[in-house]
Amino acid sequence: MINLGILISGRGSNMEAILKSIKKGKVPIKPVVVLSNKPDAKGIKIAQKLGVKTEIIESAGIKGGNWDYDRKIVSVLEKYGVTPRNGLVCLAGFMRIMSPEFIRHFKGRIMNIHPAILPSFPGLHSQKQAVDYGVKYSGCTVHFVDEGVDTGPIILQAVVQVKDNDTEKSLSEKILAKEHEIYPKAVKLFAEGKIKVKGRKIVIS
Amino acid sequence: MINLGILISGRGSNMEAILKSIKKGKVPIKPVVVLSNKPDAKGIKIAQKLGVKTEIIESAGIKGGNWDYDRKIVSVLEKYGVTPRNGLVCLAGFMRIMSPEFIRHFKGRIMNIHPAILPSFPGLHSQKQAVDYGVKYSGCTVHFVDEGVDTGPIILQAVVQVKDNDTEKSLSEKILAKEHEIYPKAVKLFAEGKIKVKGRKIVIS
Repeated sequence: MINLGILISGRGSNMEAILKSIKKGKVPIKPVVVLSNKPDAKGIKIAQKLGVKTEIIESAGIKGGNWDYDRKIVSVLEKYGVTPRNGLVCLAGFMRIMSPEFIRHFKGRIMNIHPAILPSFPGLHSQKQAVDYGVKYSGCTVHFVDEGVDTGPIILQAVVQVKDNDTEKSLSEKILAKEHEIYPKAVKLFAEGKIKVKGRKIVIS
Repeated sequence: MINLGILISGRGSNMEAILKSIKKGKVPIKPVVVLSNKPDAKGIKIAQKLGVKTEIIESAGIKGGNWDYDRKIVSVLEKYGVTPRNGLVCLAGFMRIMSPEFIRHFKGRIMNIHPAILPSFPGLHSQKQAVDYGVKYSGCTVHFVDEGVDTGPIILQAVVQVKDNDTEKSLSEKILAKEHEIYPKAVKLFAEGKIKVKGRKIVIS
């Protein structure tokens, strides 16, 4: 059985989608902790309502990529059984860059979701980037986290059409609906041991 | 009525798709010339069979981006009535970089098709780039040519799924089938005056 830890900074809508899908489905994974770097993250209460323990590790004033801070996250995750052996760490709107040490510690066990069809529009404000560029399709990508920015092996992607009258807001909403579909699906595939990493490519068995 | 010139270097399968679609549809555009930079391009005979005049302007030994060479193309195109006023130039596997002078001369009237969902995988061997990267979706893009490499305003895009067992070859075939759909469609929209350029964005009316 895999122990799942989810990292949030805000509402955590992808966290909610993952937790609900685990609740209702037969996913062999146990959501053991939701961890926020912000004390006022709305997702904390949502996690508690869904019966998942929560922790706060305040990050105010601490720059991203800081191993001293990330080490505290590792400690808390491991306290709940989220380890490099049998853990999965899902970033769900966690607004911090992870340190290389953290990424190496959980190598192949950290997932993130990005609101674009990577490698298009990495980094922040992807939906605005897409609208401004004038693409006719965008979407979202679940990937393993590596030491680059949104460069890790791709697990699942989904596509949405961008209409001429789409705005950053309307496109974000369409993409978010797809995020809530594919992120839980990727977690399920991981829990079932169906994800094989071959170099930088993912094969689903 | 728009006069259409198509530039090829090889088989010109997109040229063929465009010419056939014009023949059978009610597209208000006249394909006046197919121009090849290679004397042995297979597309030359195909164009002739479809009743379109052909011209060869040999480019062997002349580097891309050369205005002296491109000026000859302009002369030939204009001889057939493909002008900055009422012409459309379609690149269909034309394996040369155009000079900035050529691009400015026909500004907003040069189309190209690229075998990826731009801005992903610009440049050469996009299908191999996509397979190697491990994306789950790729596709193709019809865009106006600007002075960058595959950076111009996007007119139409299409998406195909990339399966775990897809190779560069199998993906190229899937994408090519979509190219043959959207390139003629973009030409038709242009001929009907339905393409509006707003900054770097295209609105279809």
